[in-house]
Amino acid sequence: MKIKLSDQLSEKIIINSLLKKLSFNKKGTFNFENDAAYLSLAKNYKTIVTTDSITENIDFFYNDPPESVAHKLVCVNLSDLSAMGSAPVAYTLNLSLNAKININWLNRFTNRLFKLQKQYNFYLLGGDISKSYELTLSANFFGKAKLKDILSQNKCSIGNDIWITGNLGNSYLGYKILTNSKIKLSNKDAEYYKNSYLYPNPCMFGSCASMFISAATDISDGFYGDLNKILNNKVAAKLNKKDFLISKNLRNIISTNKSKISIEDILSWGDDYQLVFTANKKFRNQINNLGKKNNIKLTNIGAIIKGKGIYDDSMNVIKNLSSYDHFS
Amino acid sequence: MKIKLSDQLSEKIIINSLLKKLSFNKKGTFNFENDAAYLSLAKNYKTIVTTDSITENIDFFYNDPPESVAHKLVCVNLSDLSAMGSAPVAYTLNLSLNAKININWLNRFTNRLFKLQKQYNFYLLGGDISKSYELTLSANFFGKAKLKDILSQNKCSIGNDIWITGNLGNSYLGYKILTNSKIKLSNKDAEYYKNSYLYPNPCMFGSCASMFISAATDISDGFYGDLNKILNNKVAAKLNKKDFLISKNLRNIISTNKSKISIEDILSWGDDYQLVFTANKKFRNQINNLGKKNNIKLTNIGAIIKGKGIYDDSMNVIKNLSSYDHFS
Repeated sequence: MKIKLSDQLSEKIIINSLLKKLSFNKKGTFNFENDAAYLSLAKNYKTIVTTDSITENIDFFYNDPPESVAHKLVCVNLSDLSAMGSAPVAYTLNLSLNAKININWLNRFTNRLFKLQKQYNFYLLGGDISKSYELTLSANFFGKAKLKDILSQNKCSIGNDIWITGNLGNSYLGYKILTNSKIKLSNKDAEYYKNSYLYPNPCMFGSCASMFISAATDISDGFYGDLNKILNNKVAAKLNKKDFLISKNLRNIISTNKSKISIEDILSWGDDYQLVFTANKKFRNQINNLGKKNNIKLTNIGAIIKGKGIYDDSMNVIKNLSSYDHFS
Repeated sequence: MKIKLSDQLSEKIIINSLLKKLSFNKKGTFNFENDAAYLSLAKNYKTIVTTDSITENIDFFYNDPPESVAHKLVCVNLSDLSAMGSAPVAYTLNLSLNAKININWLNRFTNRLFKLQKQYNFYLLGGDISKSYELTLSANFFGKAKLKDILSQNKCSIGNDIWITGNLGNSYLGYKILTNSKIKLSNKDAEYYKNSYLYPNPCMFGSCASMFISAATDISDGFYGDLNKILNNKVAAKLNKKDFLISKNLRNIISTNKSKISIEDILSWGDDYQLVFTANKKFRNQINNLGKKNNIKLTNIGAIIKGKGIYDDSMNVIKNLSSYDHFS
């Protein structure tokens, strides 16, 4: 597919020097010289489609490293594919570039895309470059999954376990450190959490465990809101404990920075790109084994029960749905 | 796939009141309640993918009717699918909305999308809504074509006819009328040409005639530049005449507005969304018949010859490639 830019000279440079390497020489891309591209999947696979944009001053800041912007663009989309039980195949890019973006920025941005493409095994199908006052980067990602393996948000059953991948809050603490220097923690920890915010990695557990999962979504709008999508106003969740969603190290940092960070804030923040999913109890061993095999931390955090809302293990309401109208 | 907006209330309204009708109740959309969607094509079809964005102040102006913005977004993308020999199936929308956009604007915009979806037979798979300082609308369109019917820009042969669909310049004159009130023409003509600019319709001839076409592209960067993509620096074009690319009525208007519009300007302007394509001479009858059947005006404007550049019928250089570096 062609890539357009008002300034044709820049377009040529961008395509030939920076973007062509991202096609991985796949036939359907026509080397970015055609009006469109084509996508070929093996028989019996459905094309899973997701799209997400990131915008300057909302999802990232101009001074963020271009590598971070590439990570975020890829991560938000791969995380959605994973929540659908799908592995990535290809993507298209819509770059709305402003005057601040130079070749050096684009070089660093595309080199990181190249690295992420190698890591997660997908290629660039084509795209569109335009000029804009505001830097906006959109991507359409294409994944593949067999129809029977496609996951939905709202197919859980009473009695299902509720699971969560990884730890929550690492990205939130990184954001707080970058925007509030008064948080007390070691330099090593500061570096670790800043990197969790700047270079998020999607949890691709959905695509390898889809046969055991009844419902899944990625945590992109905050833990409670995303769990609520699974409950879908039809069933309730009983959580064993909520603090073990957060790593021990982060809990220690919270207790020395009590006025600045709270667990509630962390659970309303979404940029960890972990998954929350439900599964029949009988699959506990298989799920735990898949987690070990793929080096993914898994925590069984509770169960789906009759009713509406989110409860703790003494059946006190943690959140009732009426106060969570703004999550859809 | 989910549709996100920072202001969740607006998101709900936008999805439930305005966008859901665009899903045409197709199963793979999950009613826009999942993290992604899936696309299903009949066996033996490839998924053709194209993407194009339109941005306020570049591709349209805030005061343009929302129906016009919908037309442009659909047209730029369908035109690319047609140039690949493909019919549309579905699309995703990335809406970066600014504060000026209200429900009324979105209602008119989505009603026109609905109408265009019915007309060209495609549905909305999902999308992403975000807030931005600048109104930017991106779409990824998915078409279908059998591998043997996929068209390329650069597979023409010496001796092939060069064809063009429709008339060029209608959109350009409309733009000139809207931005320069001093052009002399009747009110009826003014209305007609303004509508050609505001409500462009793609020429879908590529998808019905792909078996006869050797190379095609849509005219989106200007006639010479787009013809040059087909020539690909390897062959030349000899044009019979160039003024019959333009309707008789438009030629009359040009001759009474000589200082304000020129044929050269028209041939460098691209928003007519017509196709330029090449075909073996032996298919002339079949191509003309398909044009009549589909009510599409077709003109055989010349032939592919040995050499480089674009020539008139006396072999005078109209354009040589070195002066057209800025077309890629």
